[in-house]
Amino acid sequence: MTRAPFQRAPLAQTLFLSVQDVATIVTQVGAAATLARMADYIEADYKRWQDFDKCARVAAHSPEGVIELMPIADAKTYTFKYVNGHPKNTQVGLPTVMAFGVLADVDTGTPELLSELTLTTALRTAAMSAVAARTLARPNSKSMALIGNGAQAEFQALAFHHLLGIEEIRLFDTDPVATQKLLNNLKHTTLRLTVCDSIAQAVHGADIVTTVTADKTNATILTPEMLEPGMHINGVGGDCPGKTELHPDVLRACDVFVQYEPQTRIEGDLQHLPANFAVTELWQVLVGTAAGRTSPAQVTLFDSVGFALEDFSSLRYLRDVATEMGLGQRVSLIPNLVDPKDLFSLIRPAPVALALAA
Amino acid sequence: MTRAPFQRAPLAQTLFLSVQDVATIVTQVGAAATLARMADYIEADYKRWQDFDKCARVAAHSPEGVIELMPIADAKTYTFKYVNGHPKNTQVGLPTVMAFGVLADVDTGTPELLSELTLTTALRTAAMSAVAARTLARPNSKSMALIGNGAQAEFQALAFHHLLGIEEIRLFDTDPVATQKLLNNLKHTTLRLTVCDSIAQAVHGADIVTTVTADKTNATILTPEMLEPGMHINGVGGDCPGKTELHPDVLRACDVFVQYEPQTRIEGDLQHLPANFAVTELWQVLVGTAAGRTSPAQVTLFDSVGFALEDFSSLRYLRDVATEMGLGQRVSLIPNLVDPKDLFSLIRPAPVALALAA
Repeated sequence: MTRAPFQRAPLAQTLFLSVQDVATIVTQVGAAATLARMADYIEADYKRWQDFDKCARVAAHSPEGVIELMPIADAKTYTFKYVNGHPKNTQVGLPTVMAFGVLADVDTGTPELLSELTLTTALRTAAMSAVAARTLARPNSKSMALIGNGAQAEFQALAFHHLLGIEEIRLFDTDPVATQKLLNNLKHTTLRLTVCDSIAQAVHGADIVTTVTADKTNATILTPEMLEPGMHINGVGGDCPGKTELHPDVLRACDVFVQYEPQTRIEGDLQHLPANFAVTELWQVLVGTAAGRTSPAQVTLFDSVGFALEDFSSLRYLRDVATEMGLGQRVSLIPNLVDPKDLFSLIRPAPVALALAA
Repeated sequence: MTRAPFQRAPLAQTLFLSVQDVATIVTQVGAAATLARMADYIEADYKRWQDFDKCARVAAHSPEGVIELMPIADAKTYTFKYVNGHPKNTQVGLPTVMAFGVLADVDTGTPELLSELTLTTALRTAAMSAVAARTLARPNSKSMALIGNGAQAEFQALAFHHLLGIEEIRLFDTDPVATQKLLNNLKHTTLRLTVCDSIAQAVHGADIVTTVTADKTNATILTPEMLEPGMHINGVGGDCPGKTELHPDVLRACDVFVQYEPQTRIEGDLQHLPANFAVTELWQVLVGTAAGRTSPAQVTLFDSVGFALEDFSSLRYLRDVATEMGLGQRVSLIPNLVDPKDLFSLIRPAPVALALAA
């Protein structure tokens, strides 16, 4: 029998992190430290923006929602995320957003890590918002309006609490059960949580305004008359064609910052503005080639849509922390072959089986 | 404590099929029956071509290879495949091509099946080749040249043996170890296997010529003088920009059939021909709106590149057969939440832990 010169197959190459594994990481590391480390990974990657092969995400739209693939790579590492957005899912007991992703080695294409990314997406979206806000919001911002108290709201609240020093959060949601859930989830923190009767009431006097609503519609959560000098708007929920939160005049009244301009023009609240409406990519502010906030009275807007680079950073973080903690399970997602050209060996009938089948 | 009106979380939604699970399916169902069923699933899906939301695959190229995502959807089901192509991988004991994929529900975005697709890709590529050949090759074709005896070669041999009645296969590979491996793997079949000293010798007199080489280069495996009247060329290995197998004049001498024209113009051997060079999409032949082979002397060419629809069909098949056989493992790739808006519940500190941490 002829064999290629490989003595033994390598071990299963893919580490699988389940939802429980990532939850274990967050509870053992702590939510505050997890958000801080993810923010650092994200900021480090944004500062080497030119290293990445970027593209807009690939979306499959349907009447009820969207399924997207978000690939990105540098010279060494490739990642992608699968993520859906189905606002009616909660009616059937499913999350609006579900996600998972893979980190692979560029040189061989080996998928090294497969991880849940639903919980991770909420964490990284909040960490990304905090990275933007710590560059764009007024220093010593203390209060934040939080419009939309659904699945992502606690993560935004904690990120702004721990990474920016926000002490008071003013809550509004059309669903009082969602707000009550948030109050319950954050009751053990030192955040002062105030339930408001309207968006206007929540926004009035806030240093930062975070909008994180889920309806797949062109909503008008914020209107220009709600803006106050010096505010920072963290617009998270407008992230898909036909799914926006801000009146176009809100964008016109702000200095607008984005992750990746070509994608945000399609998906962000920016979709309602003309193609020549000026925006600044955040990485330029982070590396110092563009200005962020230049005056205390300026109103800044981070038109967040969720970009593949945050998932790249998150998967890097998860790989590092899971390896450190010894978490996860090796799964046979790709074959281990004694001879890599002998894929057929996986299904080669054993001599005995052949004899029986003959 | 406030709860949304969901009494209990659903079970883990994602079925995971490992390499071993798919190998078990193939060995229990049998390679011949597996290839036949996959071919039927593929043909059924190609016959409803208009039902699909199609796009060219999304490729990330690097010096050593390529990593691709291949999404496709109909109104009910979404699938994607992750696949790499790294010709030098065999030097480090890894397969050239590794793949996995997911089948998801369009209405909710739930990933229902996660499966290995390395073994499956070899099976479905061979099944696809057979679907094309049983439409395009001369009836009663009995002999096939098989140029390239690597990881996919046995699958092509078996598909043409079982689905088209090929009885003799004439082998050539620059690597004699690969050919020996193929001989060993297929020695228990009734195929007559002949090792040839050159491509020209293997091709001479063959009814069908299959090229399935791996080098990422513009190779010239087939030249026009090798063509004989009535041949069917099954060109499998030219599937990526800069990775081709056929002299451009081979295409000019043939009637050329493709899976999805926009993708094949970029990735197939067709990449060397002008944009107006006429080709026929195979689905049109299958539904009867375009002619396939029209004369015994005609030379037909299937310029195969691997299209997402074959993976869609394969994932459908795997889901059906795994369910029937009770194979696979449920994994927690996405969270099960009692209240789908309460993602934070996954990391909510238990009261005792909080008391200790206070």
